[in-house]
Amino acid sequence: MIDYSSILSRYSPAKEERERIDRIVRTISDYVIKYCDKQSVEADPIVVGSVAKGTNLRDGDIDVFIRFSKSYEKHEMERIGMDIGHKVLKNGEEKYAEHPYVTGFMDGIKIDIVPCYRISKEEKKVSSVDRTPLHTEFIRSNLKANQIDEVLLLKVFMKSIGVYGSEVKTSGFSGYICELLTINYGSFDSVLRMFSGLSGRLVLPDTEQMRRKFGGPVVIVDPVDDDRNAAAAVIIDNLSKVKVAAKEFLRAPSDEFFIVEREWPHPEYVDRGTSIRVFSLPRPEVTDDVVYTQALRFKNILWSILERGGFLPVSWEINIEETVDVLIECERDRIPLLNVHRGPPVDTKNIRDFIEKWEGKDVLRGPYIKGDRLYVDLRNEFLELEETIKRDIVSFNIGMHLNRFRDKMKITDPSIEKKRMKVLDRFYSKTLFW
Amino acid sequence: MIDYSSILSRYSPAKEERERIDRIVRTISDYVIKYCDKQSVEADPIVVGSVAKGTNLRDGDIDVFIRFSKSYEKHEMERIGMDIGHKVLKNGEEKYAEHPYVTGFMDGIKIDIVPCYRISKEEKKVSSVDRTPLHTEFIRSNLKANQIDEVLLLKVFMKSIGVYGSEVKTSGFSGYICELLTINYGSFDSVLRMFSGLSGRLVLPDTEQMRRKFGGPVVIVDPVDDDRNAAAAVIIDNLSKVKVAAKEFLRAPSDEFFIVEREWPHPEYVDRGTSIRVFSLPRPEVTDDVVYTQALRFKNILWSILERGGFLPVSWEINIEETVDVLIECERDRIPLLNVHRGPPVDTKNIRDFIEKWEGKDVLRGPYIKGDRLYVDLRNEFLELEETIKRDIVSFNIGMHLNRFRDKMKITDPSIEKKRMKVLDRFYSKTLFW
Repeated sequence: MIDYSSILSRYSPAKEERERIDRIVRTISDYVIKYCDKQSVEADPIVVGSVAKGTNLRDGDIDVFIRFSKSYEKHEMERIGMDIGHKVLKNGEEKYAEHPYVTGFMDGIKIDIVPCYRISKEEKKVSSVDRTPLHTEFIRSNLKANQIDEVLLLKVFMKSIGVYGSEVKTSGFSGYICELLTINYGSFDSVLRMFSGLSGRLVLPDTEQMRRKFGGPVVIVDPVDDDRNAAAAVIIDNLSKVKVAAKEFLRAPSDEFFIVEREWPHPEYVDRGTSIRVFSLPRPEVTDDVVYTQALRFKNILWSILERGGFLPVSWEINIEETVDVLIECERDRIPLLNVHRGPPVDTKNIRDFIEKWEGKDVLRGPYIKGDRLYVDLRNEFLELEETIKRDIVSFNIGMHLNRFRDKMKITDPSIEKKRMKVLDRFYSKTLFW
Repeated sequence: MIDYSSILSRYSPAKEERERIDRIVRTISDYVIKYCDKQSVEADPIVVGSVAKGTNLRDGDIDVFIRFSKSYEKHEMERIGMDIGHKVLKNGEEKYAEHPYVTGFMDGIKIDIVPCYRISKEEKKVSSVDRTPLHTEFIRSNLKANQIDEVLLLKVFMKSIGVYGSEVKTSGFSGYICELLTINYGSFDSVLRMFSGLSGRLVLPDTEQMRRKFGGPVVIVDPVDDDRNAAAAVIIDNLSKVKVAAKEFLRAPSDEFFIVEREWPHPEYVDRGTSIRVFSLPRPEVTDDVVYTQALRFKNILWSILERGGFLPVSWEINIEETVDVLIECERDRIPLLNVHRGPPVDTKNIRDFIEKWEGKDVLRGPYIKGDRLYVDLRNEFLELEETIKRDIVSFNIGMHLNRFRDKMKITDPSIEKKRMKVLDRFYSKTLFW
């Protein structure tokens, strides 16, 4: 049996942390209320996120939103919001999601001060940030006190198998989703039993209408907005991971499923008889979500160039630190000279154009007839992986931030440059969950 | 313009040949009639095939059928038929199609003496041989005298582009089909115009019913048997050839389309950057049709072994002389060590079996999750083309006659053994028609 209480005591905030959080929250709230009072600003502070819901794990962040009346113009709200943010967080940094916000540290804890509009469930939101206070309210009034530990266990479980977080990098389950699942199924165990027996998509509530309305592997209709799938971020691989982990855990419960921090692996880079290349670009100074989105596009572009080029790509991996590293493994790094070029069907009018274009030319063979089409065997021009990528990459749009670096792309062949790279560690150590 | 009369005078039988044929036919018929009279056999001789229809090309064969009353038992009919055959053809040889028959030479012309039953159009045939006299009668009473030259031109045209003959080796258009096409469209030119404008299948008569009833690229319902597609032998490649040749000829008429005998090509065996192998078996002592059918099966088996093995086959060629030679060209003769082995979907009950089978084993990577399935990266065991073929070929049924020779299979790598082979000549000289 698993000793859940020892897991909880490991990952819940200790008394000291909880007190520190309370203190910080009170300080900020007081400051904001006084500020608004003094400057006659129609706004109030509201703590949102897991801290507000009591479902925060150890060493979490604090999110304080400043809710403005909708009478404020957007730029006015943002200006005042930033002013408050900078006054609260002395060395705060400005960042930008849907609104600008200020992020910084207070007493060792990371704080985000985010301006938003006050809306009710019925009102049309102005931005998705405005909806966050509604999520907090929903969970506070629907999650029972004894379910808080269940949420924490679920979060730790998800984190442990690498599927916790809705940011693009993880594309997994957010804290809000863990809370909704717990409310819906009652406990950590029953959520796992649901996943272990689940076939196909998870749709909640599971009606024909919702199945038709939303695509994606996981659909959890947001209780505060019927038109939104709160689990839209989850990719199929992560749903699969949870299904397999749930089956494995229920079969043989183990503490392994509650280990959040693991040592970085140092696998041996064994010879797989394939051609592995790492394509690296400098990391642009933008948010993780933007970098990961563009890195995925970069990977897709590389993959499709290699696929169309005949290099037979089989697998890939991404790692982003100071550089954006995309690894692609191909069955070969050189394609054959032969290019069997398919011409028009014999029934089309313009077969003469094709025949004239190739007949008597310096081709490998043909033109000739096979099935209901004309063909000619040509010589491929670009035979090497590297030169094919370099020729084709310039004509693709990787996204604003990575495009600038296209000509700075570095291609590493790990069979020649024998150095440790995180993307290679990640690639070679791939297991079921960790 | 094409001088059709000079083509006809080149390929029609000369006066001397026609007289010789008449003489032979008369001799054989007289003999058979006398034999049957003397022995009280209820049978009569009938000349069939192109000679009987007047559509024979120069240096053709003569087919004489001996039509028995249906009151004869099969073995009795065959016994008497063989007796007559051997008496007519002194050094005749016995062969076997659906009935046995005797083949030999008389006055320099090849003769077949074939026993069959006398049936009418309405009667159920006993064998397809029995239907041949009906074909002869149909053509004689429907082909106009001035259409005989049109048939000859069509036959020479078909022969010239390599699609004349319904035997498996050619899988093309029989003489009977050329006659039916001429009757239907009126002339050589109009048959070509029809082919040049044809889109998709040729179906005659072109009704929804016939399209549904018969598959295959060419459907020509046999006028003496509604249930038979007289053009069932034609493969799509040959229909395509005729379509392209018709377009090319009508655009620029040329004598090239009436050259029946061409010099065997001696192409250069250029490097195509691929892996070509010739798989050779001794030719068994059976009819061409049987050998070609089994050779095609042999090719299909080799192809599918190589495809499943990951050698990426791209093209093939067959040549049969003293040996059955099947050439297969692959993109590579060695596959990568890596074998990405797909496991069960995560939703299935038995994922534990898969995990247990591979976890902790000496695999390249995994098991891991991708999409909605489990995977594991294994090491391929058989990496070389030759050893893969040798391992797998024994478990396939190539056909009775070739099976015996499986262990005598010789594999030639023409990049090492640099010798001329007809199958290589054929492969490297592939053009549109010849």
